[in-house]
Order: sequence, then C-alpha cells, then structure tokens
Amino acid sequence: MGLVILGASKATCTQRILATLIEKGVTDYDLKTVDMSVGEHKQPEYLKKQPFGVIPVLEDGDFLLHESRAICYYIASKYADQGVKLLPDAIDLKGNANFQKWASVERDNWDNYASPMVFQKIFKVMRGGSPDPKLLEHYEAGFLPKLDVFEGILAKQQYMGGDEFSLIDVYYLPYTQKLFDAGYGHFITDRPHVKAWWERISRRESWQKVLALP
Amino acid sequence: MGLVILGASKATCTQRILATLIEKGVTDYDLKTVDMSVGEHKQPEYLKKQPFGVIPVLEDGDFLLHESRAICYYIASKYADQGVKLLPDAIDLKGNANFQKWASVERDNWDNYASPMVFQKIFKVMRGGSPDPKLLEHYEAGFLPKLDVFEGILAKQQYMGGDEFSLIDVYYLPYTQKLFDAGYGHFITDRPHVKAWWERISRRESWQKVLALP
Repeated sequence: MGLVILGASKATCTQRILATLIEKGVTDYDLKTVDMSVGEHKQPEYLKKQPFGVIPVLEDGDFLLHESRAICYYIASKYADQGVKLLPDAIDLKGNANFQKWASVERDNWDNYASPMVFQKIFKVMRGGSPDPKLLEHYEAGFLPKLDVFEGILAKQQYMGGDEFSLIDVYYLPYTQKLFDAGYGHFITDRPHVKAWWERISRRESWQKVLALP
Repeated sequence: MGLVILGASKATCTQRILATLIEKGVTDYDLKTVDMSVGEHKQPEYLKKQPFGVIPVLEDGDFLLHESRAICYYIASKYADQGVKLLPDAIDLKGNANFQKWASVERDNWDNYASPMVFQKIFKVMRGGSPDPKLLEHYEAGFLPKLDVFEGILAKQQYMGGDEFSLIDVYYLPYTQKLFDAGYGHFITDRPHVKAWWERISRRESWQKVLALP
C-alpha cells in the first residue's frame, strides 16, 4: 500500500511534500484533497489526525504524521536509496547536526518572515480580509537584514544546506515562490546570490511539475 | 578536548544547551561568555562563526555549529550512550520522523508566539524600548487557540514529544520560563494539563541547575 497525503495540490505545505516525492522518484502515493472551503480540516475526524486543524497529513499504513517538513523528512529517509539524495546518512553525526542547523535557519530567518507576509498579502485577502500595513512593516523590517545575511551565505555555498541541493532547499520552495506572488520578488532578485540560488532550485523539474499540477 | 559553547548563562538559547548537557551528564565543556553589552556578537570574528550575529555557537574541535536546537541535537546524538535518552536511535525511521514532527510543532505553534511576546515584554525593554501593544495583541490572539490545542495534546501524553521526557521538552524550557517572567504565566497555569506538563519538566534537576547559574 502506498502513501496517502491529505492536503491540496495548490497549498504551500502540500507542495513541499509533492516536490520531495518527485525528487525521490516516489510514485506510489495518493493525494486526497481536504476540502478546506467546507471546513473539512476543522472536522473532528480530521482533527484526530492533525489537532491544529491544518493540512497536510501523511498516512503510511497505520503510521500517521503531520507537519510538512517532518513528512518530507520521513519520505527522504524512507526512500533514502532512490532518487536524489536529500538527507545525510542516518549515522552521520555531523551531517545530521548540520541538517538541523540549516533547517533551523530556514524557520527562524526566512519562514518566520515570509510566511506571515504571504499570509497577510494572499491568504488573508482570499478570506475577504485586507493586509495589515503595520504587521507587514514589522515583518519586512525583520526580514530585510536577514536577507542580506543570506546573500553572504549564498556567496559561499550553492544551496541553503551546503554545496549540494538537499531537503533544506525543498523546505524553502513554496513560501519563496509565494513571495513573488505577494509582490516581494525583488527581495530575491535584488540580491545576486539569492537570485542565482532561487533560479537553481525553482527551475528544477520537480518544482516545475508541482507548479503545473491542476 | 571538550566542547566549547560561546553564549551566556542567562540567555534563553544558551540555557537550552546547558540543560541538554546536564541531562546527558556531559561535564567536559567550557562556556565562554560572549559579551553582548559591547556588541561582541556583531564583531567580524564572531560573525564568521554565526553570520546572523546571535548566540550561541558550539565548537567541538574544528566542528562549528550554530542554532541552539541543532546544538542540543548534536549533543544528544554524540552522547547518545550516556545520561537521559533524549533522541530516538539514529536508525529509527518513524521515531525520527516523530521527533521532526514534534520539533516542528514547537516552532510553529509555541515558539512563534512565545518568543516575540517575550521579546516585546522583556528584551526590548532591556534595550530601552517599550512593548508594542498592537504586536502583543497580534501574537496573543494567535497563541491562545494553539494553547487550547496543546491542552488537548497533553491530556493524552505526558510530554511534548510523547510519553517520555525528551529533547522536545528541552526545546520548550527557556521561552516557557520567560513567559512567566513576562507576565504570561496564566497561559500555562490556567490549563491543567499544560500546567502539569510544565511542572514535570521545569522541576527537573537539570533545569533548576540552569536557573541557579550565576
């Protein structure tokens, strides 16, 4: 029996998983759409699987897992021997510590700003709200100096986890893509090394396939 | 040669590492204080080790690592065979995926609110600023429904990573402690299962020793 993903093909965190599946060459999976327009993600049956009421969830037989990055990690570990190598070997002490380091950098210094900015400019608007200028200003002011540090980091390494494409880069894909949709593409394109990195990872066949999904 | 931690004994993210060292029974380490009052963390020499200019950094011989949770992870992995077991075995596929899940829950649903609230109420004030009521309201409004989900989770399991104390709980220690200092202790104590969990982990000898450090 293959993997089941409860999510939505156009949802950021589901896209992160789909990109991982493609990179690993995993085809034996089923994406079951959670209909958020009717609040399916807030129903008791779903909340048993994901108590915070957000997508996605992975089902692998009777093994249930939520949190998109953890799901990507599970897929990259389970299918370690096929597709693109996305994680260090399980017994590589320093490699795994570095993975944790770069994963933490993504959360603290990128996602912590990109996600709420995208929320204000896109998801809140989809729900009939309007972006809060003060909050946008707050997050932008925090993000800009971090972006300059990333420019320095990417002057020294090709990818966000080191010199090879890895799961760390997959973590960045959906919300960086959405930064462009939210009108913040210049945050990326104004910085030559960040721009070159983004082109390297976003032009990969996996991500282009994810974006092309209906 | 032992580990070197560049940090400060009263700084939240350094405390996370110190608690891990104590839980693992690691005594062969040296805490070198980074003097943030004179901006040592923004000097070129330090920025070579931590480009974002924050503490802490770990040095283990010529292996350098930043990001406090990654440092804790490294210590818990390197000293897997001693002290309290804090991590799944390296080859435990589902155990490690669950670790990633619960670590992600800590970032997204707790730290994303607790850290900026503590920043507004404590660290900003230490630097001569004053808390921004609108930002506090924004973060509080996001945190409260999450806390209610945590109450449900902790009704079913004793610890934040499952039924045993683990590195996941260590991740929560410093900022949950600071929530009390920031006047948000009722967020914890109003919820019986969250309160009981907090008492279980904060009364551990390791955390009490960390708090007692000069």
